[in-house]
Amino acid sequence: MESVPNFSEGRRRDVIDRIVEAARSVADVRLLDLHSDEDHNRSVLTLAGEEGPLSEAVFRSMATATELIDLRGHSGEHPRVGATDVVPFIPLMGATMKDAVGAAEALGRRVAEELQIPVYFYEEAARRPEHQNLEAIRRKGFEELREVIGTDPDREPDLGPRAVHPSAGAVVIGARGPLIAYNIYLGTADLAVAKAIARRVRHSSGGLRYVKALGIDIPARGQVQVSMNLTNYRRSAVHTVFDMVRSEAAAYGVAVTDSEIVGLVPMEALIDAARFYLRLHDFEPKQILESRLMSSE
Amino acid sequence: MESVPNFSEGRRRDVIDRIVEAARSVADVRLLDLHSDEDHNRSVLTLAGEEGPLSEAVFRSMATATELIDLRGHSGEHPRVGATDVVPFIPLMGATMKDAVGAAEALGRRVAEELQIPVYFYEEAARRPEHQNLEAIRRKGFEELREVIGTDPDREPDLGPRAVHPSAGAVVIGARGPLIAYNIYLGTADLAVAKAIARRVRHSSGGLRYVKALGIDIPARGQVQVSMNLTNYRRSAVHTVFDMVRSEAAAYGVAVTDSEIVGLVPMEALIDAARFYLRLHDFEPKQILESRLMSSE
Repeated sequence: MESVPNFSEGRRRDVIDRIVEAARSVADVRLLDLHSDEDHNRSVLTLAGEEGPLSEAVFRSMATATELIDLRGHSGEHPRVGATDVVPFIPLMGATMKDAVGAAEALGRRVAEELQIPVYFYEEAARRPEHQNLEAIRRKGFEELREVIGTDPDREPDLGPRAVHPSAGAVVIGARGPLIAYNIYLGTADLAVAKAIARRVRHSSGGLRYVKALGIDIPARGQVQVSMNLTNYRRSAVHTVFDMVRSEAAAYGVAVTDSEIVGLVPMEALIDAARFYLRLHDFEPKQILESRLMSSE
Repeated sequence: MESVPNFSEGRRRDVIDRIVEAARSVADVRLLDLHSDEDHNRSVLTLAGEEGPLSEAVFRSMATATELIDLRGHSGEHPRVGATDVVPFIPLMGATMKDAVGAAEALGRRVAEELQIPVYFYEEAARRPEHQNLEAIRRKGFEELREVIGTDPDREPDLGPRAVHPSAGAVVIGARGPLIAYNIYLGTADLAVAKAIARRVRHSSGGLRYVKALGIDIPARGQVQVSMNLTNYRRSAVHTVFDMVRSEAAAYGVAVTDSEIVGLVPMEALIDAARFYLRLHDFEPKQILESRLMSSE
């Protein structure tokens, strides 16, 4: 399983190091990625391992963040409600979404009890439909939540105290599928074309259910880009998005020159694309040599 | 890395079992497949592991075969020169062809010294261009080789004694890429179309360098099939083959209905197809989450 905890510290190197150290102090958990942003004043760890060690690593990093980050003196462009702001669990390979929801719930209970931090569950772990969307929980952030958490029933946490932790705030824990950051480059410098295609392809304006999209200018290449987040590649597939953008672009007489995946992608998303284009109707994932090597005997 | 040793015994179950046991006696080596053929009187093991343990497992299985198989009393349809007849090493995932050639050479030295069996290197490990082709080494088999090995300079082994082992013969060791068995179904029952397309796509009649192809009737589906072996998917890619067959079929007004991979396929072959169709020019294999999880830190 994978977990991607987001911490409200992107500037003080020593604090970030101690949070990372806490996560790495657990054997059999791997730090796949660390991304710190000074403007956002935020760091994002990507951790992977079996559920038990992974949850322990996340908990230790949260305990360290609770100790070292004080939101009362924190500023940054990114919205946040907690020192540890958001913790998604993501099922990989053999694991199911149910496993990830279970991991989120177990971590939430421990955080509420041992760290005395109010916990909200989101996405697949949400206990209220309106909490599926992270932004509906976070809204205007720590400074607002601190005032209303004890009085507004809509802002009541799912677990833990009905008051924010004085310095560490609250935390949003949940389970979701892997995100894919996917960009498609167009053979034009006309930003209006990229924006029009983004509107067609994204969910919010009538497009695919699990696609967020923007039209973006890339002056260094003299091209524009449809920049996307695919939030559920099993339901809104990479190849579906690619063919849709290509078809929309063709209506403007514009070609797709290439596409790019930013960061990591689950093997399955690319295998699904190969299956689609090669029309491999009866293909089984166990036919992939490397899957066979990874599976237990 | 993978190795697929071929043994000249496909009938005596106890002998096959002891060869398999010898291979399995090494920790961290996995038996992915065992295929025994009575008509061919031959068994093929598919083993995978890190180079050290894998080579040890292959060596132990060869030592057992040397002890238990006597070619002087062996008959079968399949050509063979040795009790252990052929041993290819196949690089997987992080490994390179150079690693596989290195494994073949190291095993060859050990076999020549410790088992006193003459060794020929083939395919990517060949020391003479005419030895790239296995059949050019094996020719008419053990009975012929036994007579000419000491006198014909063309049949001189690369390592070891200049006489066959009295009972176990000789062995051909080498390195090659993985084979992919790939079939494409056409939307017609006209076998002539499948045969014409097979001629276009296969190397032997002017097609792609690493493709073998036949047109085959599949009465159960009321369709015909272009049945292929891709002997080097890095150079003659699955997607190149698919698009070529589709294009040739279109010239007959025939559609490709679907395709199938028989048995195992390296992940890279499908990832390459996804990269091609999605135009992912700058994609790196390390962006695949599962590759990252498997690689060492």
